[in-house]
Amino acid sequence: MTGSRWSEAAPGRRRGPELERAILDAALEQLSTVGWNALTMEGVAAGARTGKAAVYRRWPSKAELVVEVLRAGLPSLGEIEDHGSVREDLHRLCVRMRDVMRSRAGEALRAVLHECDHIHADRFRGVIWKGLHEPAQDLIRDLVERGIKRGDVRVDAAAPFVTDVIPAMFMYRAKVYGSEWEDPDIAELIDRVVVPMLRP
Amino acid sequence: MTGSRWSEAAPGRRRGPELERAILDAALEQLSTVGWNALTMEGVAAGARTGKAAVYRRWPSKAELVVEVLRAGLPSLGEIEDHGSVREDLHRLCVRMRDVMRSRAGEALRAVLHECDHIHADRFRGVIWKGLHEPAQDLIRDLVERGIKRGDVRVDAAAPFVTDVIPAMFMYRAKVYGSEWEDPDIAELIDRVVVPMLRP
Repeated sequence: MTGSRWSEAAPGRRRGPELERAILDAALEQLSTVGWNALTMEGVAAGARTGKAAVYRRWPSKAELVVEVLRAGLPSLGEIEDHGSVREDLHRLCVRMRDVMRSRAGEALRAVLHECDHIHADRFRGVIWKGLHEPAQDLIRDLVERGIKRGDVRVDAAAPFVTDVIPAMFMYRAKVYGSEWEDPDIAELIDRVVVPMLRP
Repeated sequence: MTGSRWSEAAPGRRRGPELERAILDAALEQLSTVGWNALTMEGVAAGARTGKAAVYRRWPSKAELVVEVLRAGLPSLGEIEDHGSVREDLHRLCVRMRDVMRSRAGEALRAVLHECDHIHADRFRGVIWKGLHEPAQDLIRDLVERGIKRGDVRVDAAAPFVTDVIPAMFMYRAKVYGSEWEDPDIAELIDRVVVPMLRP
């Protein structure tokens, strides 16, 4: 393709999507190393081997750039295939949620939240909500409905408060205990709270 | 008593505990009206009709004064008498938790958290933890154990993850939905999540 030939010939003059990717990568690198307060548009531009104007043309502020970095960097929860029991299905989901928060963007997100002011925190929390909690709730509802059909979940369990419990426990234990959600914690959550709550 | 005669004679020269009370009242008044950022030790002293030195002598910084105001101002959860079922007992507990957060100090605490920086937020969250979540967890454990003895709670339910669920749901829904926990929300939490989770 012409694009890649051009890139090979002149690595400093990349096309749109490729340059955007380089900027986002450089910004995630900066976030992970120097953090939110010390991140600068100049530093990101330098990391991406481009000019400051190329960054500002796409993201008018540091906050908008960082929202995009976190949004684009957070792995998707994906689908959960049927493992034959609601216990196993929801266990897999919790492992995925934990892994999203342990991803490079997830770690950066938590560090940023620990460092930024309240107004920015609200925007960054929106990224967790849209990127993790909302899809998790949708998935949980699907898995609960699958369990109702299968017969290992009570028929009235596909309800809002019920689907909140797993994300609520993730948020609470992270805040209160600074928990990292090791595998035994996930097993406890599933066996002590989730499965009893859902059984027919 | 000599103390009260003295106060009546010279209202501006109150004794220790009385003056402390006046300073804490004035500080809560300031927090509730102008908020954390605009609160000043001078303003608090003026509100308590005393001098700035009298405030600083007791609390060397604004943060320490505010921690004390919130700590002292948050109503206690108290005891929950036996209402004959775990459903009713935990329902009462949730109503109390909601009422603590709706108290004047509870509202001030939430407003302060929304306004202050991260380092202060950690200290103020400590007040919620010590003043609300920790006593709530202790009470929940007692009520669950009462239910086990009564026979309307499964015998292995008095466990850490289980006692986290109510405070976790309070925190999550407040953060994510800005929920004010109206009575029907509490009923949903109890009937959809808590009672199913605990039934034998």
